[in-house]
Amino acid sequence: KLLKIAVIPGDGIGLEVMPYGVRCLEAAAKVFGLSLEFEHFDFASCDYYEKHGDMLPSDWKETLLKFDAIYFGAVGMPDQVPDHVSLWGSLLKFRREFDQYINLRPCRLMPGVKSPLANKKPGDIDFWVVRENTEGEYSSIGGKIFEGTDRETVVQETVMTRVGVDRVLRYAFNLAQSRPKKKLTSATKSNGISITMPYWDSRVKEMSSSYSDVSVEKYHIDILTAHFVQRPEIFDVVVGSNLFGDIMSDLGPACTGTIGIAPSGNLNPEGKFPSLFEPVHGSAPDIFGKGIANPIGMIWAGQMMLEHFGFSEAAAAVLKSIEIVLGRSDLEVMTADMGGKGNTQTLGEAVEKEILAF
Amino acid sequence: KLLKIAVIPGDGIGLEVMPYGVRCLEAAAKVFGLSLEFEHFDFASCDYYEKHGDMLPSDWKETLLKFDAIYFGAVGMPDQVPDHVSLWGSLLKFRREFDQYINLRPCRLMPGVKSPLANKKPGDIDFWVVRENTEGEYSSIGGKIFEGTDRETVVQETVMTRVGVDRVLRYAFNLAQSRPKKKLTSATKSNGISITMPYWDSRVKEMSSSYSDVSVEKYHIDILTAHFVQRPEIFDVVVGSNLFGDIMSDLGPACTGTIGIAPSGNLNPEGKFPSLFEPVHGSAPDIFGKGIANPIGMIWAGQMMLEHFGFSEAAAAVLKSIEIVLGRSDLEVMTADMGGKGNTQTLGEAVEKEILAF
Ligand SMILES: CC(C)[C@H](C(=O)O)[C@@H](O)C(=O)O
Ligand SMILES: CC(C)[C@H](C(=O)O)[C@@H](O)C(=O)O
Repeated sequence: KLLKIAVIPGDGIGLEVMPYGVRCLEAAAKVFGLSLEFEHFDFASCDYYEKHGDMLPSDWKETLLKFDAIYFGAVGMPDQVPDHVSLWGSLLKFRREFDQYINLRPCRLMPGVKSPLANKKPGDIDFWVVRENTEGEYSSIGGKIFEGTDRETVVQETVMTRVGVDRVLRYAFNLAQSRPKKKLTSATKSNGISITMPYWDSRVKEMSSSYSDVSVEKYHIDILTAHFVQRPEIFDVVVGSNLFGDIMSDLGPACTGTIGIAPSGNLNPEGKFPSLFEPVHGSAPDIFGKGIANPIGMIWAGQMMLEHFGFSEAAAAVLKSIEIVLGRSDLEVMTADMGGKGNTQTLGEAVEKEILAF
Repeated sequence: KLLKIAVIPGDGIGLEVMPYGVRCLEAAAKVFGLSLEFEHFDFASCDYYEKHGDMLPSDWKETLLKFDAIYFGAVGMPDQVPDHVSLWGSLLKFRREFDQYINLRPCRLMPGVKSPLANKKPGDIDFWVVRENTEGEYSSIGGKIFEGTDRETVVQETVMTRVGVDRVLRYAFNLAQSRPKKKLTSATKSNGISITMPYWDSRVKEMSSSYSDVSVEKYHIDILTAHFVQRPEIFDVVVGSNLFGDIMSDLGPACTGTIGIAPSGNLNPEGKFPSLFEPVHGSAPDIFGKGIANPIGMIWAGQMMLEHFGFSEAAAAVLKSIEIVLGRSDLEVMTADMGGKGNTQTLGEAVEKEILAF
């Protein structure tokens, strides 16, 4: 089986970590005899925008539809292009138009990585965030009235559909069912946000009757973020709206030491459209150009891609290689975000070498 | 100067912590010769709702307008009344109709309280969250269409006005200006939420030109929650929308050990309407009835009330008394959320005793 991968490094440190992501995938392909085909694209970047006045070429959809997967770095350089323009012109467009309705993100405390939380060891934090990825608070509908006056008012809609809510919940329930703890936590804010959030709750309640073996808890997002910090070990699968999933999947990885290692799969589970795999971190303009970005998030995203397309053995080897390198805690190799003195290259090559040794 | 205080314990542990809040205020009044007048009300509770079919009597506004301040416990018993009904029928109504447009919440690591974050000591975490408290995501506008079908869709509006955004920003800028660090952090999510959040950013930018001595940073809420956990010492004053302020003011106090000690002022700075003071924690049905709730959030909210109305000496004494009792870290006195074996009474009375000793 040939896997066709569109490589889009994007902006900032996306450009720096992508080469190591690709090298690790190539290493896995070599060791496990996989057929991976890569094609690189320079669109979906602010440089491309400056040259062409748009984030994407007009035929982007036909172009990318030829691929099984998009391997994506990061996008956004707010000094060049406003963030909402660059993001709605690229990543958020992919998610929406390729119906990547599941955003799946592991939060796992890895060996060798120090949690900012006191007294946590590997195994204590190990859960998945399942995020709705196409609707909700990221609606792009709304506008401004009475501009420039004292009555100036802006509105933006949050939109939830039964189809959209039910399919992400079903995915999350199934995932919870496949895990030993079989526990699902739903994040809402039904006391404050009085229409959309109680609707989400009602869909959770309805669906839970078909999953009697899954225990369901719901929390308001405010206190849920407190629990992430105070007792992360209680979570197994956490599901939330586009915005709440976004917040939880930065906070969760932060509790596991660094968001630099966290990966993310933007999935169209039916495979009708390409799925997209990216690190959770962004383009990080503040450290761009220094070569010190953590490449693990990018590499782990590649690992999620292998797993998603059924290359389980190769996926397991890549994950193991990441764990071995991190577990060694070699400060000469580890990047600054994990307290090390190494850089993108030292860490990326260390993982590549481990994979090749399989 | 006589301070007229409406006491509304509400639901759940609100009923259990309120007596100690009032006793501590009475103690401060005695020691510092203040004239405080208390009147108790049973409305704004789910029990009241069950009896009267509404959270409030029809004349609630006239009744409460006679007071300078509302001393509020907590509201919500989701098994009795759905949360959005109980909250929009009471607390959120007070905030909106009494134009308490500032929600002010300290995040401070207190002596004797253990942070869940590694290696933090008192002084390391010390910032204010300033939350917009009347509009934004808590709009209550929206609805449902195609109910019960596959096309079922719910929408809810986020509404921001120039008046609403500017006044909370001005308050936050002024507060930052009054502090040694003079630093303001603004929380938005302009890359994803493309209309309201860039608008907030633009108002911050506009206003910052009148506060050249205040340094301004902005973060997207997702990475900001990560910074709360990874480097809380960088914050001084953090300002955000109704929802983002809500999240930050649970997460912040959680990072300082327990949300059980965190207070909150819902301020109408002009004093045209009563301001409302409450603990950050909610009604906590899970521990209600056991007498183990932490009373410090309630007592500290009373302290904020004294401060707000200019009784600075008494306010300082109450804060000091809280610090002394917590700093003692007497496990027989401290409540379970802080690792102690004491209860609401032991802790509440310990603080009262300290105040009386001033
Ligand atoms: C109870 C709830 C509506 C409220 C809010 O979201 O504002 C609470 O969480 C708070 O922070 O005061
Ligand atoms: C860059 C931004 C639009 C994006 C999001 O909010 O979805 C990012 O934070 C993420 O989590 O993938």
